[in-house]
Amino acid sequence: MSQESRLADSAGKMQKIISLCKRRGFIYPGSEIYGGLANSWDFGSLGSQLKKNIKDLWWQYFVVNRDDIIGIDAALMMNPKVWEASGHVDGFTDPLVECKECHQRFREDQLIEIEDKIERSIAKKLLKIDRCPNCGGKLSTARQFNLMFKTNIGPVDDQMNTVYLRPETAQGMFVNFKNILDSTRVQLPFGIAQIGKAFRNEITPGNFIFRVLEFEQMEIEYFIREQDWERIFGEWQSAMSEWLNYIGINSQNYSIREHNKDELSHYSKRTIDFEYKFPFGQKELYGLAYRTDFDLKNHEKHSGQDLKYRDPQTNETFIPHVIEPTFGVERTVLAVLCDAYGEIEGGRGQDSRQDQEVILRLDKKLAPVKVAVFPLMKKEKLIEQARAIVKKLRQDLGHLPNFVIAYDDSGSIGKRYRRQDEIGTPYCVTVDFETLEDKAVTVRDRDTMKQERVRIKELGGFLKEKFV
Amino acid sequence: MSQESRLADSAGKMQKIISLCKRRGFIYPGSEIYGGLANSWDFGSLGSQLKKNIKDLWWQYFVVNRDDIIGIDAALMMNPKVWEASGHVDGFTDPLVECKECHQRFREDQLIEIEDKIERSIAKKLLKIDRCPNCGGKLSTARQFNLMFKTNIGPVDDQMNTVYLRPETAQGMFVNFKNILDSTRVQLPFGIAQIGKAFRNEITPGNFIFRVLEFEQMEIEYFIREQDWERIFGEWQSAMSEWLNYIGINSQNYSIREHNKDELSHYSKRTIDFEYKFPFGQKELYGLAYRTDFDLKNHEKHSGQDLKYRDPQTNETFIPHVIEPTFGVERTVLAVLCDAYGEIEGGRGQDSRQDQEVILRLDKKLAPVKVAVFPLMKKEKLIEQARAIVKKLRQDLGHLPNFVIAYDDSGSIGKRYRRQDEIGTPYCVTVDFETLEDKAVTVRDRDTMKQERVRIKELGGFLKEKFV
Repeated sequence: MSQESRLADSAGKMQKIISLCKRRGFIYPGSEIYGGLANSWDFGSLGSQLKKNIKDLWWQYFVVNRDDIIGIDAALMMNPKVWEASGHVDGFTDPLVECKECHQRFREDQLIEIEDKIERSIAKKLLKIDRCPNCGGKLSTARQFNLMFKTNIGPVDDQMNTVYLRPETAQGMFVNFKNILDSTRVQLPFGIAQIGKAFRNEITPGNFIFRVLEFEQMEIEYFIREQDWERIFGEWQSAMSEWLNYIGINSQNYSIREHNKDELSHYSKRTIDFEYKFPFGQKELYGLAYRTDFDLKNHEKHSGQDLKYRDPQTNETFIPHVIEPTFGVERTVLAVLCDAYGEIEGGRGQDSRQDQEVILRLDKKLAPVKVAVFPLMKKEKLIEQARAIVKKLRQDLGHLPNFVIAYDDSGSIGKRYRRQDEIGTPYCVTVDFETLEDKAVTVRDRDTMKQERVRIKELGGFLKEKFV
Repeated sequence: MSQESRLADSAGKMQKIISLCKRRGFIYPGSEIYGGLANSWDFGSLGSQLKKNIKDLWWQYFVVNRDDIIGIDAALMMNPKVWEASGHVDGFTDPLVECKECHQRFREDQLIEIEDKIERSIAKKLLKIDRCPNCGGKLSTARQFNLMFKTNIGPVDDQMNTVYLRPETAQGMFVNFKNILDSTRVQLPFGIAQIGKAFRNEITPGNFIFRVLEFEQMEIEYFIREQDWERIFGEWQSAMSEWLNYIGINSQNYSIREHNKDELSHYSKRTIDFEYKFPFGQKELYGLAYRTDFDLKNHEKHSGQDLKYRDPQTNETFIPHVIEPTFGVERTVLAVLCDAYGEIEGGRGQDSRQDQEVILRLDKKLAPVKVAVFPLMKKEKLIEQARAIVKKLRQDLGHLPNFVIAYDDSGSIGKRYRRQDEIGTPYCVTVDFETLEDKAVTVRDRDTMKQERVRIKELGGFLKEKFV
């Protein structure tokens, strides 16, 4: 394939995914009936369940089932001094240029449309773009604008009561470090994890849910002894790859990129990105950073509180260093959708009447609907039986987390299979006329297309085994 | 008990719960190392898990295991026109008076400290309080201040790009109503559910996590035909009581209060509160409101979009009416803690050396730690065996959602039991010297204090049965 047709193909894939998401209720444009709101998206029935599945699995994987990581859930609004200590008030900015004619503002680096990262950082220094892409007017020189959203607590809007919406979840872990030492029995190395919203007031190109103003992070601050950082960094790199494998991301579709020296944040000694091959390019999915003792040290200085850890063996006190694995929730959703999306030319199965069938080969754990139950035809006896099976399955499997069971009786059976394939439902159960005699149903596997006859009595156990 | 000592006792109970929460890592004051931030709280290891357990159970109970309710997850920031249509821009205000001397502002109704609601509404009309409680200066007449937090999207702060942090989750459901009709096969009656943050810029008396500036709601908008509203209102009243029962709230500790006519929101024809007997008084825990067709009608008017439902049988089109059950997350956490909190004078068990033991009789489903495993003493062989059991249990039960297994080897065994009782852990497993011989452990039940000898091989199954 030529580069051109590959690009067109990629753009096509993205458009197809966006359209599938809207059509089937994964993701809608935010506030759509009012013409939307800049880069904001609402998760519908399937999307909210897919997102919840990802977050719940992550929490189970990294928090519940590990001894060395504990969870927290900190407020989105924190004392503004937190963001002075963290460096965000002074340093969390984008350079913006303003058009002197139409007064629109642009992010300087986005005026330069060179995709490759290294080239871009050179280009930034070399190129001077001085004309407005909107009206052709002269652009101002760049000024720094802070990316934190500001609001005010209390009825008076003045600087005294300005608070920020947190631009990252990380500071919640640092600010609670002392409370956690005082109220738990954690010993180094240990991690504090959090899932929650963060906000960045960016001018962004969007790319669907890839870059949004409000987003969710799943983040761990892992506290260590300085001398262990390289080993533990490596362990986290492996753990993150294992997680990607666990949620079914094809290892061919992501790679690891080391940050250059001049790209590293001021606090970081080493950072790597897990980059996923999105249809719009290879972009950051997750990050892993060695943040040194930068944050705790600064909070100790700014808060005047002792944030040292006391080694229970040696009684030595010191400020731990930190390895930070960060996982974007929306980006995981997007990567999972891109990875699972497939098209089968000519459709499949004898009842297919379409030229092309869409299939989402989601990992079973992630699928928003686990099982769909159909009566073969819209006949009272079959409907009754199918409804009874849904009810029975809910009783038997209702304790399994997020085990959504759907019922569908509208349209031909082939159409219903395709509808479920399109949203990634791993198993479809069909009640036919024989069922009324032999008390058995047909279970069809999304991926293998294999159909198995299973006795209703054994259906709960049969399905459970597929998921546990 | 006299009323006075009962009040003192209640205040005492609240203080004890707050202190337990901080000491054991349920809930810390937000941004504490920086002196906190108005009514903000961070959930620690146990608190974040307890809160997650509540939210996950709610989602499973009302969304996953029901056919008629689908979930969504909408952005916190919505197009500002949403809040014009909903009436929040004009009407979501508190009357504030300002001291002409010290310029502090007060909520008018909070100046009047009469607890009983009916009395208060009369009192508001009768009493005139005109002196500042802070400095004694003269107070201004009341002015209306909007309770929505404002921020700006983009680098320029002007009215053009003002957005609000949503003051309720409900509008997310109304704004997506059309998208949901178009992308799913829902038929009346059906509900749209959401769990998420909401924000209210109130001057509040706090009461721990009872009233906070940012909080989470679990909310359902249940769309119905107008003529069914009384029946379905009744069904929801029952469903909410059943939920309270499901999470173990003693039915003696809450009651239902009907809103008076002059108390009803402008859109509501009937509202009831589920009021819990908190230590600081009987206060709203949940609400159930009949919102009529107010919201959809207004969004249709303001957005110019057709928000009608088409009856698939009759082809009739109309705007559905709405029943809204709302559940506060933080208030559920607080009610659950108050309900579970108990003290046993003189302690219990032969190894108790304390005058008083605290026990949290949390419903097992809610307990942040499900099982704690102890080696009887800090001996290598016992530690090894206990660690191996933790590992085995994680393998066997790791698929159960939020099944946290703790390990503790520090302090006497009696102390460790008490530590687990205090955080509501239903089962403690002790590995003793006999274990090394008979491959069995002692399982102790938090509530009955019954101790059972269970073979390690059967431990996973034994515990699973207690929870599923």
